[in-house]
Amino acid sequence: MATLAIRGGRILRTDMTVTEADVLVDREAGDIVEIGAELGGDEELDADGCLVMPGLVNAHTHVAMTLLRGHADDKPLDAWLREDIWPVEAALEPEDIEAGAALGVLEMIKSGTTTFADMYFEIDRTADVVEASGMRAMLGHGAISAGKDDEAARADIEESVEMARQLDGAAGGRISTAVMPHSLTTVTPELLERAAEEAHEAGVPVHYHANETRDEVDPIVEERGARPLAWAKERGLCTEADFLAHGVHLDGTEIDLLSETGTGVVHCPASNMKLASGMAPVQRLLDAGVSVGLGTDGAASNNDLDLFDELRDAAMLGKLAADDASAVAAPDAVRMATAGGADVLGLYTGRIEAGAAADLAVIDLDAPHLTPEHDLVSHLAYAVRGSDVRHTVCDGQVLMRDREVLTLDEAAVMDRAATRAAALLERAGV
Amino acid sequence: MATLAIRGGRILRTDMTVTEADVLVDREAGDIVEIGAELGGDEELDADGCLVMPGLVNAHTHVAMTLLRGHADDKPLDAWLREDIWPVEAALEPEDIEAGAALGVLEMIKSGTTTFADMYFEIDRTADVVEASGMRAMLGHGAISAGKDDEAARADIEESVEMARQLDGAAGGRISTAVMPHSLTTVTPELLERAAEEAHEAGVPVHYHANETRDEVDPIVEERGARPLAWAKERGLCTEADFLAHGVHLDGTEIDLLSETGTGVVHCPASNMKLASGMAPVQRLLDAGVSVGLGTDGAASNNDLDLFDELRDAAMLGKLAADDASAVAAPDAVRMATAGGADVLGLYTGRIEAGAAADLAVIDLDAPHLTPEHDLVSHLAYAVRGSDVRHTVCDGQVLMRDREVLTLDEAAVMDRAATRAAALLERAGV
Repeated sequence: MATLAIRGGRILRTDMTVTEADVLVDREAGDIVEIGAELGGDEELDADGCLVMPGLVNAHTHVAMTLLRGHADDKPLDAWLREDIWPVEAALEPEDIEAGAALGVLEMIKSGTTTFADMYFEIDRTADVVEASGMRAMLGHGAISAGKDDEAARADIEESVEMARQLDGAAGGRISTAVMPHSLTTVTPELLERAAEEAHEAGVPVHYHANETRDEVDPIVEERGARPLAWAKERGLCTEADFLAHGVHLDGTEIDLLSETGTGVVHCPASNMKLASGMAPVQRLLDAGVSVGLGTDGAASNNDLDLFDELRDAAMLGKLAADDASAVAAPDAVRMATAGGADVLGLYTGRIEAGAAADLAVIDLDAPHLTPEHDLVSHLAYAVRGSDVRHTVCDGQVLMRDREVLTLDEAAVMDRAATRAAALLERAGV
Repeated sequence: MATLAIRGGRILRTDMTVTEADVLVDREAGDIVEIGAELGGDEELDADGCLVMPGLVNAHTHVAMTLLRGHADDKPLDAWLREDIWPVEAALEPEDIEAGAALGVLEMIKSGTTTFADMYFEIDRTADVVEASGMRAMLGHGAISAGKDDEAARADIEESVEMARQLDGAAGGRISTAVMPHSLTTVTPELLERAAEEAHEAGVPVHYHANETRDEVDPIVEERGARPLAWAKERGLCTEADFLAHGVHLDGTEIDLLSETGTGVVHCPASNMKLASGMAPVQRLLDAGVSVGLGTDGAASNNDLDLFDELRDAAMLGKLAADDASAVAAPDAVRMATAGGADVLGLYTGRIEAGAAADLAVIDLDAPHLTPEHDLVSHLAYAVRGSDVRHTVCDGQVLMRDREVLTLDEAAVMDRAATRAAALLERAGV
């Protein structure tokens, strides 16, 4: 067994306590083997003065959209999609996906995220980036019926199913997959049903956008005579494996439904604020026992992929949504960013315990904004930012050591992304 | 004239456009002298690949509260003040103020803030830190009547006036002052009037908390029969020089009053979220022509002093408050963090133009999360964080060069703050 020891730090336990301990990792299996005092390994990582925490889980993003970071801001969701995003996405080439995904993965490694769930196009290119970078990802082809004829819409769903079957277990098991119909309103009812059926037959989850804006919820209620999630459940989209993004506008029956079915929710607070979508009832979801993770959504509506921002936003906005300063307390927010997201995706990561995936972020605490150290969990929720991450470990491999990313050529990734982004906008004529 | 040239970068103009230019600074006068191509100076600062922007203005904080960072989170304002904050503040010693202020000033220099407005105690100690660190500050003794007998309450207001007179113009003019009665409900009406009268006689502003929570506004309306700001205006607290913190719960008549009187508002979005105070109507204030700046509030309700967080929060939360994704657009948010805050404080800083104070932050753009560069103003609002600041210049002096703070001993400041913070909590018995 080739081992890696993370030594000399304090660790964040799954119960949100912090204790001094070393972490021993099996580099071949990619698992955590032992937690204890004075553990030595074949390779060692210095965590002196640091907090060792589980790698963060970004449970909903469109990673290649980093190419559109700052391209169009300060517009409502509908106009933004139609005028600024979809025209550009129509001009995307596979090399753009690869360049944008590499940029996003680089950014995530540098800010301590080790797992991400991605809904986008040309996902074999994203899979190549995941493979090369050493990250963990759940990938899915985002299928959409809107603007397509029946045949094309059906082919799109079939592609989502086919890619999910093909890529599941790739990159030595670091890649898992889901079937990803875009949303309850942009995919036809028939194809949503088929997506669910085929996903579950293939043994993978369904992931989709739901209940993001009032403009999306109200027509469903009016035209289909049911709350969106009651309707979705009837179509087989709310099993324990499945998870939805956003869940901003949920009523009590839908919160119960999520709890009873075990369907996960990915809260995207930055995107919900930036697009003025609303405030998700996060404390009510947690109270009901719903699995809740955090997502950055795409960089075009955020505008970065630093999950520490979402962690802070979730704690902050959760209080406003509940009109209660004790809502979404720091430990709950940190849990959503780690084990919560992992539970939503059905992956055994996001916790430092023997047997879990060796996915870790080592936080350098030696900074003015992290002084004094009254409460390190509070720091994680309210003061740590991605740039405080010193080392990132995923699947037992060191992806970043002392802020140097070892698996990607940082300058080359940035250069290529900048070049492709400029050419993309020119091609799209926006 | 001894000069400093900031060379090779792009600069953010007051109209929120970005152009390539060098900036020439008079180090003795502390002013910007010229903006143009190929400017040389006695001293030079490399801004190649960087964006040179005005130093940020943190227009409302309690800087020494960095000692309480993470001491008590996730509690409502009233309980938090009574149970966690006031008992500790009662045990504060002058050395704590100095240690906490040094920590906060260090953090602000490292995140590009060059001016802050501070309401706290023992402000001569904060003034010493400002003097030594090279920052610009508007200081005021926070006076409070609650819990004091008449004589003590009067003495407290007198101290606020006396300190404002004494310190105004200190540190070679980098320190200005205000009289700072704590709020409209924690200081008696008579003493609020006296504070305003004496402040204006001394030629300094009055600064106070107002309209922060519903629990504060409702009793004023009921017991005094007027909206808080109408009542405050009658007491002389709403002149063009004066400014209030928060302004979360404002009605239309109060927005008009602020606009007509020229009274400034410091928006503190992080604090308002963390304490579940509510969402300030920022776009409505901007539409009415009110001077709006941004503040971190104290680190205990934030929990950091990185004004880039407030910039992002203001843009994000402003959209939710207006239920409109086009509200508080990136340029407006950036303006609030710079020239807006400066206008609130009545200081000629926060803009890069000949004659303005040479207060600058140089942002390193060579980072994955700032790639590609479609729109640098968008980056400032949504993607830049304090750790991207490469150099900080205030009053013509380089306070930080290549992330090394030149005016403070970083390790010593952090050590002292950590030691004093631990001893303080022990002494306070919390």
